Amino acid sequence: MAESSHFTVEMHTRFILIEPSHAGNVGAVARAMKVMGFDDLVLVRPRWADVLQREEALERASGATDVLQQAKVFEHLDQALVGMHHVCATAMTPRDFGPSTCSPREHFAQWLQQPLAQQHQVGVAFLFGPERYGMANEDVYRSHVCLSIPTHPEYGSLNLAAAVQLIAYDWRQALGGYPVASPAKPALAADMASLEGALQHWQQALVSLQFLDPNQPKKLMPRLRQMLMRAQPSQAEVHILRGVARSILRMLGTKQG
Amino acid sequence: MAESSHFTVEMHTRFILIEPSHAGNVGAVARAMKVMGFDDLVLVRPRWADVLQREEALERASGATDVLQQAKVFEHLDQALVGMHHVCATAMTPRDFGPSTCSPREHFAQWLQQPLAQQHQVGVAFLFGPERYGMANEDVYRSHVCLSIPTHPEYGSLNLAAAVQLIAYDWRQALGGYPVASPAKPALAADMASLEGALQHWQQALVSLQFLDPNQPKKLMPRLRQMLMRAQPSQAEVHILRGVARSILRMLGTKQG
Repeated sequence: MAESSHFTVEMHTRFILIEPSHAGNVGAVARAMKVMGFDDLVLVRPRWADVLQREEALERASGATDVLQQAKVFEHLDQALVGMHHVCATAMTPRDFGPSTCSPREHFAQWLQQPLAQQHQVGVAFLFGPERYGMANEDVYRSHVCLSIPTHPEYGSLNLAAAVQLIAYDWRQALGGYPVASPAKPALAADMASLEGALQHWQQALVSLQFLDPNQPKKLMPRLRQMLMRAQPSQAEVHILRGVARSILRMLGTKQG
Repeated sequence: MAESSHFTVEMHTRFILIEPSHAGNVGAVARAMKVMGFDDLVLVRPRWADVLQREEALERASGATDVLQQAKVFEHLDQALVGMHHVCATAMTPRDFGPSTCSPREHFAQWLQQPLAQQHQVGVAFLFGPERYGMANEDVYRSHVCLSIPTHPEYGSLNLAAAVQLIAYDWRQALGGYPVASPAKPALAADMASLEGALQHWQQALVSLQFLDPNQPKKLMPRLRQMLMRAQPSQAEVHILRGVARSILRMLGTKQG
C-alpha cells in the first residue's frame, strides 16, 4: 500500500513497539496503522517469539494481516532505528535529561517546517513502550522528542493500540490527510424565490385550516420563514413542502365542495 | 469524574453504541472515553444482555470500569437521545437523504462557533453503528451531521474502540484540550557567551590533540560552532563540554610534563 502524501517529499514512517506483551495489541496496532496508510511495523523483544502468527494478533488485525506479515522483529532498539532520522518517543511522564515533551499535533506542525523534513527519504520513527511500564529511560534518551498525548489529568491509561491510532491519525493529518467521502451529488439548494413560493402556498393552506387568521396573523409567517431559512432546504424538499400545502388545499376544497 | 472544559458552557457529551456485538469492544470504548474525560456511555440493543458485566468488557476497560457500571442500556435509539441537542452519526459512506458528511475536526471547529453551542447544558451525542455493518440509514437520518474519519482510501476498517478514541480525542481537543505534562523545571539554556567560552576551550584542546592545525584551521571551528548552536545546549551541557576539554588539556599536560 503506497503512502499517498500531499507532500512532495517521501516520508518513511515506522512504528516500533518495544517489548509488547499482548499479541492482540500487536494485531490491533497493525490495523490502526493501516487505516492511516502506514505499513512499517517493527517489534523489539516481543514477549512471544511467534507473536506475529498468534491467533489473537491475526484476529485483531482484521484486514491488516499484511502489515503483520511484513513486520520485523529485532533484539535491540538500535537495529530498529537504522534508516530513521527523526525519533519520537511516546511517554506520559517527561524524563529528566530526556528530550523535551510536546503534544503530537503541536510537534508535527513545528517539525514539518524544519529543513530536515524537506529532505529526500527522511525516516520518522514512533516508539511505544511495554503496555504495563511505558518506555524505559534509555529508550527515551534515543529520541529527539517525547510525544505526550493530552489525556484526562486523572486517568491517562491509553491502550497501546489506541495510542498508536491517535499518533497515526495526527501524523497522517499533519502530512496532508485523506479526503472525506462525500455524496455523489450534493442536493441543489432552493433559492429565495422557491422559498417564497412555498411560504405563500403554506400561508393559503394555513388560512384554509383556520390555523392562521388573516385579520390577526401575529408573527406566525415570519417565524415559519425563519425556521425554513435556518434549515436551508433543497429544491426537492421545497417541492415536498408545496406538495403538502397543495394536498391540504385540495382536501379542504373536496370536503367543502 | 468531572469534565474540565476550558469553555464556560457545560457540554454534556454522550457516546452511544448501537447493537455492539463484542463485549471486549464495549470495555475498550469505556477506556477510550475515560482517557479523554468522558463518562456517559449508552448501549442500544447490545448483542449480550449482560455485556457490561462480561469478563472481556471488564478486562479491556482496564481502569474505566466505573464508566461501564454507570452505562445505560436501551431498546430504541430515541430513548438514548433524550436530553441531547446535537447528534453526530459516524459512518464511512455518506447516505442519500442523510445529513451532510464532514471530518470530525472540521465539524467541531465549525459547530462550536454556532449559537446553540453557547447555550447552557447542551447535549452532544456521538452514534456508532454495529461493528460489522456500520450505522443503519434510519439511525443516520436521526443525526444532524455525519462524521467521517479520514482514513486510507483503500482500507478504512476502523475498530469500534479506535473510532471512539479518535472522535473523543478530536472532541476533547476542540473543547480546549488537556495540558501536556512537562518536566518540573526546564533546563536553563546556555547564552552566547557560555557557548563562546566552551568553543575557545575546545579550540585549545583540539590544538593540543593536533587535530586542529592553527596555521591551517580550515573550517573546523565554524562547523563545530554551527553544530553546537543547532543543539541549543543548556548551561549544564556546556559545563560538561568544558569539563571534557579541560580533561584533554590536563591529560596531555601530564603526559608531556
